[in-house]
Parts: sequence; C-alpha cells; structure tokens
Amino acid sequence: MEHRFSPTTYHATIGSHEPVLTVGSGDTVVTTTIDAGGWDANGDQIGPRGNPQTGPIFVEGAELGDTLKVKFDRIWPNRDHGFCSPRIAPHVLEPGDPSNVTEAERLQFRLDFESGAATVDGGPGAMAGLTVPIQPMLGCFGTAPARGQAISTATSGPYGGNMDYKGFAPGVTAYLPVFVEGALFHLGDGHAWQADGEILGTGIEISMDVVLTVEVLKGKEIGWPRGENDEYIFTAGNARPLDQATQHASSEMLRWLQADYGLDAAEADFLLGMHVEYDVGNFFDPAFTMICKLAKSVLPGG
Amino acid sequence: MEHRFSPTTYHATIGSHEPVLTVGSGDTVVTTTIDAGGWDANGDQIGPRGNPQTGPIFVEGAELGDTLKVKFDRIWPNRDHGFCSPRIAPHVLEPGDPSNVTEAERLQFRLDFESGAATVDGGPGAMAGLTVPIQPMLGCFGTAPARGQAISTATSGPYGGNMDYKGFAPGVTAYLPVFVEGALFHLGDGHAWQADGEILGTGIEISMDVVLTVEVLKGKEIGWPRGENDEYIFTAGNARPLDQATQHASSEMLRWLQADYGLDAAEADFLLGMHVEYDVGNFFDPAFTMICKLAKSVLPGG
Amino acid sequence: MEHRFSPTTYHATIGSHEPVLTVGSGDTVVTTTIDAGGWDANGDQIGPRGNPQTGPIFVEGAELGDTLKVKFDRIWPNRDHGFCSPRIAPHVLEPGDPSNVTEAERLQFRLDFESGAATVDGGPGAMAGLTVPIQPMLGCFGTAPARGQAISTATSGPYGGNMDYKGFAPGVTAYLPVFVEGALFHLGDGHAWQADGEILGTGIEISMDVVLTVEVLKGKEIGWPRGENDEYIFTAGNARPLDQATQHASSEMLRWLQADYGLDAAEADFLLGMHVEYDVGNFFDPAFTMICKLAKSVLPGG
Amino acid sequence: MEHRFSPTTYHATIGSHEPVLTVGSGDTVVTTTIDAGGWDANGDQIGPRGNPQTGPIFVEGAELGDTLKVKFDRIWPNRDHGFCSPRIAPHVLEPGDPSNVTEAERLQFRLDFESGAATVDGGPGAMAGLTVPIQPMLGCFGTAPARGQAISTATSGPYGGNMDYKGFAPGVTAYLPVFVEGALFHLGDGHAWQADGEILGTGIEISMDVVLTVEVLKGKEIGWPRGENDEYIFTAGNARPLDQATQHASSEMLRWLQADYGLDAAEADFLLGMHVEYDVGNFFDPAFTMICKLAKSVLPGG
Repeated sequence: MEHRFSPTTYHATIGSHEPVLTVGSGDTVVTTTIDAGGWDANGDQIGPRGNPQTGPIFVEGAELGDTLKVKFDRIWPNRDHGFCSPRIAPHVLEPGDPSNVTEAERLQFRLDFESGAATVDGGPGAMAGLTVPIQPMLGCFGTAPARGQAISTATSGPYGGNMDYKGFAPGVTAYLPVFVEGALFHLGDGHAWQADGEILGTGIEISMDVVLTVEVLKGKEIGWPRGENDEYIFTAGNARPLDQATQHASSEMLRWLQADYGLDAAEADFLLGMHVEYDVGNFFDPAFTMICKLAKSVLPGG
Repeated sequence: MEHRFSPTTYHATIGSHEPVLTVGSGDTVVTTTIDAGGWDANGDQIGPRGNPQTGPIFVEGAELGDTLKVKFDRIWPNRDHGFCSPRIAPHVLEPGDPSNVTEAERLQFRLDFESGAATVDGGPGAMAGLTVPIQPMLGCFGTAPARGQAISTATSGPYGGNMDYKGFAPGVTAYLPVFVEGALFHLGDGHAWQADGEILGTGIEISMDVVLTVEVLKGKEIGWPRGENDEYIFTAGNARPLDQATQHASSEMLRWLQADYGLDAAEADFLLGMHVEYDVGNFFDPAFTMICKLAKSVLPGG
Repeated sequence: MEHRFSPTTYHATIGSHEPVLTVGSGDTVVTTTIDAGGWDANGDQIGPRGNPQTGPIFVEGAELGDTLKVKFDRIWPNRDHGFCSPRIAPHVLEPGDPSNVTEAERLQFRLDFESGAATVDGGPGAMAGLTVPIQPMLGCFGTAPARGQAISTATSGPYGGNMDYKGFAPGVTAYLPVFVEGALFHLGDGHAWQADGEILGTGIEISMDVVLTVEVLKGKEIGWPRGENDEYIFTAGNARPLDQATQHASSEMLRWLQADYGLDAAEADFLLGMHVEYDVGNFFDPAFTMICKLAKSVLPGG
Repeated sequence: MEHRFSPTTYHATIGSHEPVLTVGSGDTVVTTTIDAGGWDANGDQIGPRGNPQTGPIFVEGAELGDTLKVKFDRIWPNRDHGFCSPRIAPHVLEPGDPSNVTEAERLQFRLDFESGAATVDGGPGAMAGLTVPIQPMLGCFGTAPARGQAISTATSGPYGGNMDYKGFAPGVTAYLPVFVEGALFHLGDGHAWQADGEILGTGIEISMDVVLTVEVLKGKEIGWPRGENDEYIFTAGNARPLDQATQHASSEMLRWLQADYGLDAAEADFLLGMHVEYDVGNFFDPAFTMICKLAKSVLPGG
C-alpha cells in the first residue's frame, strides 16, 4: 500500500512523539522533508532549526526486539537551491591551529538538474563557483530511542539519528533497532551533496522528496543501524571518540556475520579483518559515526 | 644515479642509527625488505621480529626543516608466501564483546603471480581458501625522528613509521619531514594485501623488492607525512585516539592547501570541507593513522 | 517557604515532563528519592529501574538563560540497606584484560547509623564484611535539557544528569543551566558511599531523604554544572572521552573566573594552571564526568 | 653503599645510553638534576632543553622481567628560583575556546626556604605575587624502554617518563619495569610545585638535589610504573586518551592486588571499585598520565 503524506509538523528530537501517520509492514510512503534550517520546497521556514524531522511514522506490528527495514526508493531535492556553512569545526583541527576560521557566512548553492551539478552562488574569493555533483542523501533518520527518550537531532545513537553518512543515498536499505511499539520512524536533514565527516557542520542543506518502503523484521534484534546497497553491507557505530564508534560498528558487523552468514567468531574475525573498509560518517556532532563495510562479493555465498 | 643495495642489518626502531647507504638527492635505490617477522626472500629469519627496517639511508644535503620526497617506483613480493594473524585486536571491538577471539594460529598465504591472487593455505573452517588480490604496499617507513629518538617500528608519528596505509603502494610518492642530517630513511613491513585499519595486527606479511627514488626539498617544511598518487594528494595523522589522528591529518592538509595551492584559510576550509575523503590507516598500534585525501581534480588548477 | 513533597511518580529520563511541584525562588523542598532500582524507604519497588527521578520541580521565574542554584541542605539514607554491583565495567580495564570478571551477583550492604558504617551482608570470599563509612551523595540530578529533549538518567550532559560525583554531598550548592521555563529540576540515584568513577556501575544504592533550597539567578548564564562547598568551587564536564569532559570542565572554570572573579583570560589561565585539582566523577556512563576544582583559599579575595 | 655522583652529561631521551654510573642493588645515590630547560643550581645552562635527564644509572643484576624499586629519600631544590609558563595548553580547553591565551611570557618564582613558599617575581596584573607552598617532586624519570628505543622526555610510557605526578615526592617509592640489562635509570624535571595535570606545560621548573636508593626485585614483573607512600599504593597509566591511561592504571592495580595481596579477580574488582581514587598526572604531553590509588588502610592486612 502506498501512502502519500504531506507533513505539517516537525520535531527537532527523535522520540516517542504522537505518530503523524500509521502504515503497515510492507507499505510505501511518499513524503517530503524540509531542510536542516526548517525551510521547505518553497523556501518557506515552516519547521524549527536543527534537522527538523518528518514523522514519526507508526509501523504496525513493530515492537521492542524487532528490526525496522527501510528501503529508500527515492531521495531527491524538491527545490533548486541549498545552503552550506563554509567553516570547518574547530574540533576537526589541531588544538590551537592558527588557521582556524572563526567566522564565516553561509553560502548558497544553485542546483542545475540537467547537468546534475550544484554550484556556489557568489561567495568570496576562490569559493565562488565551486561545483559538485548532485548526490542526494539523508543526514538524519531513526526510530524512537529506548526508555521514552527524546534526543536532539543534532546527535545520534543506537537508534540512528544524525549520522550524516553519504551512503544513506537513494536505493540504500537501512535497518534500525525497534525500541517502542510502532518503531516511530523519523526522517529529515537532506543533503544534495556532502563529503566525509560533514566537517563543515553541513552538507548542501536542502528539502527533499522521499519515497520509502518499510518492513518489520519480527524477532530480528540488532544493536546498531545497518545498511545495504548493491555492493556492500555496512554497520554504523555512533559515539565519541571515533575509536568507540569504530568499536560499535566493528562488533555489530561481527554479530551480523555470525547471525546471518553462518560464520563462527573466529571465521567472522578473519573475514572482517581481511576485507573491512571503514567510511567516516559524521565527525561534527556530539556523537561521531563510523561505518564498517564489507563488499557483498566477499561474503559467504557472495 | 642508481644504487643496488643488499641490506645485512635491520633495525626494529626508526632512529639515528649508523647509515647503511649514502645517496644523493635524485638518486634511485634498488633494495629489498624482509617481512614483519624478520624472514627474507628465502624464508630465512635474518632480522629481529617487529617490522625490521632496511636502512637507514643517508640522503646528502637533507637537514632539519627540509622535506624528503620518496617515490616508490616498485614494491613487489620477492617470495610466494606470506603470513597473517586471523584475530581482530580486542581494542577494535566493544569492551567485553563476547565474540572476542582470544587465541588464533597464524595462517599462511600462497601467492600466485600469474593470477595475481593470494590464497590461504589450509586453515580451519570457512577460513580455508580465502583469496584476495595481490596489492602490495609498505606498512612502515620513515625518517629518523627528532631529538635523537629511536622509536619502535610498532608505532608511528610525525616522522612516519608503522602507518599501515594501503595507499602506500607502488607508484605513490611520499613526503616526510626531515629532523636530522641526512634524513635517515628506513623502510620495511611489506604487505601483499591489507584491508583498512590492519585490525588483525597484520596484512599478508611478506618480503619485498623495492625501488625508490629520493629527493631533498630544501627549505620545504611539513608537519606530518604526506603522499600523492595519480588521483589524490593526502596527509597522514598518527596519534591516539583516532580523533586526534584526524585532527593532525586535517590541519596538515589545510597547511598544504595554503602553502602550495594559493588558498587562504577560509578558502582552504571550504575546499577541504566540501571534498574531503578520509581513509583509516593503522587502527592497531599505539598510534593510529588517519588519512585525509583530496582528489587532484578538485584542487585549484586540477 | 518550605514544601513537604511525597513523590508518587518517577521518571527514568530528565526532560520536560509535567511538573509534580511548583515552588518559588528561595523555597525549600523536603522530599525523598528512591534508589537506582526503583526501591523506596520500605524496600518496595515503586518506580522504574535506572535512576528514577523525583520531580520535575517547577521553579517559578526560571527561564532559558538563567541559572538554578540548588543548596542540598540534607541528603541522608531513609533505610538501612543498599545494594552494589561488584564488577568493574570492561571499558574501565585494558581491552582483553584476562582478569575481566564477566558475571557477578549484587551485594547487599547493611548500614549502621550509630557507627556510621556500611558493611557487606554476606558475599563470597574476601568480599564478605567489607566496610565503608556512610558518606551520602546524589548521583543524578539536573534541569530539563534544551530542545524538548528527554534524556536517559543513565547519562549526563550540560544540564547535569548522572554525574556520580561524590562531592555532590550534603551541604554542597549546585548550579545548573536553565533551558526551559521553570527549570524543571529532577533528583535521584542516592548513594550511601561511592568511590571515584563509579566504576562498578553503582555506589551503595539507597533511597534518601533530601532537603534542598532552590534559587533562580536571573540572567546568569552558565555552560555546565557547577558546585561549591566550604572549601572549593568546582565545575563538571560531562562527555566522552574523559579528555573532552576535562576540556568542558576546564573551560567552564575559566569562564567562571573571568565572569565572577575579575580576572582576564591570561590571569584566569595562570591561576587555574597553578592550582587546579581534578576529580574523576562518573567513568561508567555513555558520558563521563570530570570535575575541575579550585580551593576557595586561592581565589581572588579568598 | 652510597655513591656521590655529579653528572656532566644529560639526555633528552630515555634510552639505552652509555651508563654514567654503576651501582649495586641496595645502593644509595646522592646526585642532582638540572631543570627542564637545562639550567643547573647556579643558573647556568649546561644541558639540552626539554627535561634533560641525569643518568642512566646501571643497576647491577637488573634484567628484563625484573622490577627496579627506587626510593626517593630526598628531592629538594638546590637553588632559590624557578620558572613557569602561565598559559594553559589549547588541548586542555574546549576546541575554539575564545579565551584561549595564545602567547604568554614565562614567569619567575622566588623560593623562600624559611617560609616554605614560592612567589611570582613580578608578572602582569593579578599574576604578580601569586604564592604557593614549596612541594618538590620529580616530573620525569624512568628505565630504558624495550627494543632499544630512546624516547623523548616529553612523553611517557610503560617505562615511566614524563608523568608529572605530584605524588612522586620525597619519601615515595617508585617501581619500574626493567627492559634492559642494568635497568638504566634516568631522572630529571624537578618541580618546586605543580598542580594536577601540569596543564601549563610546566610546574615551577627547578634544579634539585636528589638522594635515592635502588633495589632490584628479581623475577618480579610489572606492566606499568607503580608507587607507594605512607598512605597509598598507586599505579600510573601513560597513554592518550585519558580513558586509555585510566585503563592501564586500573588493570595494573588489579594485577597488583591479585599477585601480592591474595585476591582473586572478583575480589580485586570489588575492592578496587569500592575504594579507588584517581589522580590526574600529566594532561599535557603526547601521553597523558592517570594514577589509580588505593589507601593502604583498605588493603588486605592494611
């Protein structure tokens, strides 16, 4: 079943808020997200700043101990301009780095959908005219966390959140732990483009059209967000420091290999150690994100 | 000028040891390295365990404040077998991860140079027969560190060392700070293959034939190892935690962009923030390695 | 004005929950807390596990940008037994530490108020009979965090939370940032005794009688929890890793010295550097706590 | 046997340098150290900057796997002035802290041995006249590290080094692992006073008279520096981040409790968890130092 949903309220936390839509396992949702500053497709500010979320979507049958599978069928900008902060966060640089830029104006990007490129509109000096390909992604999405928490969309955790991983792109399937009845799925913070780490604190922030299909995996328990695309399976660890994020992502991948690919602990260790690829997600937030990837071609049966 | 050098002594530290060879800026050295356990091309153990190094090579004219440029023209296994530890280091996993493998036997790989593949020779269960492509690299090289130090080849720092980055592959050019007269270049720890992080504590450890060309960049001062291949320029930060390694790599890249690409601090910030790619080097040693990369195509004039 | 308040509901998050009591600035509240497991003075479990909180208390006149001053006039166990976990958390020890204790039964302590001592009741081997002085403290308290968040009482942040610092003892005055109207003060997680770090994950967990006096400091803006007793002023940084917690605590102390003690940045640096004492609060939670202290005797005018 | 030793050479690394003195187990050495900048009792610069070390002292009979016990009978300034940097290191503060002091002149302290106080001699603004008690300690000492390494006295490790812990004061007994024949003991970097963390990068730097007695504990193997005074036993973990330093110190204390105090792993966990006190040593160097302490009164038989 397909639901066309036009959101009217947005949350700046991921939590057990009143559901705005109820869907069944297997249903598809056609919806939109507003940008990180609350601006919509028309450039009107209709939500709070700070990664306001569409949702939560209540998925029937989901409960604590299940996994929510979310296939992102489409993520695409629904307007032709986005903004970006041009300053690298101080904690990304050496303490006392004298080149630390203390103030900087936001830049506007124009998107040209024919050429598939986004270009800085004005901007000082060598910043003018910088062009990148349009490669849309969702920076922040997740299920309501445990214990009735409502957690700022500025950060992330086992439930997902602001992971800012460019691999959460059209066609990806995400898997999220379910902590509460209905899972309560939230989504937002679209980027037309983003490099590793989101070290500027933004990608090209933009509102999106999103089509996604949800499925409840009953009794399937996972510890951290996972994902899958044509080439890779991957896990996301969300914590500080980056070392700890890497630990969560790596242990979660070992759990996956043992539970679903028929490997024992030693076999999983060896396969992961011989083939792991790490991608840096968010390196800006209170929690950082490390991605642990394995090519499907190296998996048993792959 | 080309020097053919057959080493007879090996060091398990990088330091101000007696030079074994003196070369001029611009000279090429044709030499060999033994593997991480001290075994040579014939499978004889002729050096100490723990990444024994060929060298140091004294490069005439190099002194404190210069940069040593090292082009790796060739890095290729000089025997057809290598070894690998199959166990992920405990610190890579969540504290208390119950799947932590506490003991494991080393595995042997056979290399088939025709097919370009390395395959596990025996091994228990699903480990048997695992095959990876031969993609040689040097795990450990560097210049003698400052202050008369001699530092274990188990770790790394501003002078290089055990960075275990798979991008230090044939064709790459490395740049290293010079701290002492003659630079005193060391090299070793060849891997026929290694995934990100060297989280097993080894790649496929093997002895190598190496051809390299050195050049002294007078008065060129850098803070951390740098590299360049056909597609990328990159910097290496070596520290714990990974966050700090990332800070060093990122600040070093900003310094590079400002010194050599005509950007001011704000322009460098924006360019890096929009295009940075991070690769995880060593995540096993006392110091971890993070690589900060920029595609040459996005550089000014690129 | 004094309010005698007997709580009937408890929250396992600190957030913008419905106030259970409204008080004026300057008022005193005489109340109780239940223990970390939800057990009350009678040993009945009447609240959720995980540091259930009394409150929130709405303090009239408090709003974003103010500071809530809370003087803890009395914190004293209201029953004669408490429990303790005897196992050090794995992340407190070296990765792979072979002495890591994987399972352990909770221990019960008996409190003797005449002698002022708490003693293990039974317990295996050398654990039997371990005795510590009764030194009560509150492990977890705070104001509702920003952005409508509700955050688990298992962790901490700028709003306070589960800091587990033994200096939050009878007679201390705490200062907390106010993020929402009424401040919404929560308190719980009493310990009859606790060592540094709460590395067992518990102190001696017990229900408490608490008397506290609140005051709104209008227009006084602080960044992190602060405290004051007869001898010291101190700040609390709550984050991972401990390094970052130390950064927050240290910067917050510099802000305090500059705002209230008439020092410029350089003078504050020197005074802090010459006299700082660090105490380790919680080293168990998702966020760790570092305390930065200065003796009042070394303060200007001290 | 007592050796009166006047050093003439100093090392800026701790390593397997030529011994300057050979002593037997049980012997006492009466010697001096110069200050962190290389200045001696007369205020003459006779050694290199950066914590130049007296030594190494070869202790007969010591070899890999033993422990070197060093009782510091006396540590006392041998001149009446010392210097101090007044600026907190940037990494101690929040990234981007606007109060970060970027430049600052060294301050001179005058020592008055009658009153037992050290006072700033001049200095700007509120810094003038700051007075602290004379509480001498040694910031840096250690045995030659493993593998023939020579490591800068700016950092620390399992062998000791620049730990800057104010508990290494007159009367303390230190225990250090022995990695090489003769142990090769080094010492230097005296401070007339220092607060926690040495966050200024200096204490009051001064030259010292030192009397120490060494003893070889044959076959006694330890992993990290340990210490003992009248009230406490303690261990030192030296690493970044502070979390890891804490892990080493905590695990080393558990090993101590099990090896020497007759506790099993579970008993050691509980005793440490109930009584641990952490002190912050160096929080300035490439490696930080965390101290894990237990009061002797709580030890079995204590």
